[in-house]
Amino acid sequence: MDKGHLLYEGKAKALYSIPEQNWLWVEYKDQATAGNGERKESISGKGQLNNLITSVIFEYLSSEGIPSHFIKKLSDTEQVIEKVDMFNLEVVVRNVAAGSFSRRLGVSEGTVLSKPIVEFYLKDDDLNDPFINDAHVTALNLADEAEVSELKTKALEINHALKKMFDKADITLIDFKLEFGKNSDGTILLADEISPDTCRLWDKNTNNRLDKDVFRHNTGDIIPVYQEVLDRLTQLNK
Amino acid sequence: MDKGHLLYEGKAKALYSIPEQNWLWVEYKDQATAGNGERKESISGKGQLNNLITSVIFEYLSSEGIPSHFIKKLSDTEQVIEKVDMFNLEVVVRNVAAGSFSRRLGVSEGTVLSKPIVEFYLKDDDLNDPFINDAHVTALNLADEAEVSELKTKALEINHALKKMFDKADITLIDFKLEFGKNSDGTILLADEISPDTCRLWDKNTNNRLDKDVFRHNTGDIIPVYQEVLDRLTQLNK
Repeated sequence: MDKGHLLYEGKAKALYSIPEQNWLWVEYKDQATAGNGERKESISGKGQLNNLITSVIFEYLSSEGIPSHFIKKLSDTEQVIEKVDMFNLEVVVRNVAAGSFSRRLGVSEGTVLSKPIVEFYLKDDDLNDPFINDAHVTALNLADEAEVSELKTKALEINHALKKMFDKADITLIDFKLEFGKNSDGTILLADEISPDTCRLWDKNTNNRLDKDVFRHNTGDIIPVYQEVLDRLTQLNK
Repeated sequence: MDKGHLLYEGKAKALYSIPEQNWLWVEYKDQATAGNGERKESISGKGQLNNLITSVIFEYLSSEGIPSHFIKKLSDTEQVIEKVDMFNLEVVVRNVAAGSFSRRLGVSEGTVLSKPIVEFYLKDDDLNDPFINDAHVTALNLADEAEVSELKTKALEINHALKKMFDKADITLIDFKLEFGKNSDGTILLADEISPDTCRLWDKNTNNRLDKDVFRHNTGDIIPVYQEVLDRLTQLNK
């Protein structure tokens, strides 16, 4: 399997073609960003940790009957994924109030929600990824009604599985962001990454933040924090 | 029927009790506000026009089989309404992109939407009436799932009837805001007002604004504009 040409480079990952395969070669980068890219820093080791954590999580989800675009880990910073047409959406699931949800709706951070909430956001850096509702998703042709329903169902199934895994690792899954795509068969697959960059993870006993909020709020070094998440998840498989 | 004590005074209306009746006495005020009350002006004649326009519209909707809290017009600035427990929600229906929809989602003002869009907003001045989705409505206990569904259905029925009426008056109904409440029987009723303060209305031929945007954007005097809307609607009944 050969690494082809660069197809796309984003804030956190670079994607390369894999000639003669419907697969992509992903390189996780060390760049950390906050505030829609307003703040950028290179943090050595971050790409590796997110690649390893995402690989562990996607393998776990697959074992729970939830397929994703993930095919295999290639190295500490690289993985192979199935090529999918991405929905231009971010799907957020919330179990506990935090972040923009708390600020916008006046619900204290840490309030446990009576049931998980799914939110859609339009992926558009220029518009600051605005929050949208189901009617916007179909009006903007981001997905049709059946797909909206399937995305919500999948997001809640993934939430159920992830909560179980993180709970065993003594971590509370506060909220997280997912992205989805459709493969060449038209099957909707979980895509992108699941890592402390895309989840809010609080230590179950201390409520210490084990996620990107440490970078967003400048409260410490993210590397030992992300390493702690990786260690706890890896431990579960032993 | 006697006017009792003041129960509530808002930006645009004052509500009084009506002793021994489950009704309220509403006085429409001349105050105009924009930017969540940041800008306030008293505009003589505005209360009268909104009361008369709302009365015409609620009577029309009733004739179309859509009940509301409206009972009768008392004077040029007063009406009697049925007392309802208000949902703490604003329900917005959009037919054509404009205002915050255009700004937030990057859709040019004037773009006709493939189908009407319903949006919910939490009524909370301190939070600037944030946009919310169906899951937020139930999580925040603003309405239950069946009520969410009924509010959306009613909003679309009202849109259908209003579009028909405004079209006959050579006015394009761009978008509008509704509020609902439940009466003592638990029936969900359309409430509040429907006027150029709560609708975007564009002249069908010139696209001239016939609504509060004239005040928001300081492009002229609203009194002749609101009078024009009243005259065109009154003309339909002749």
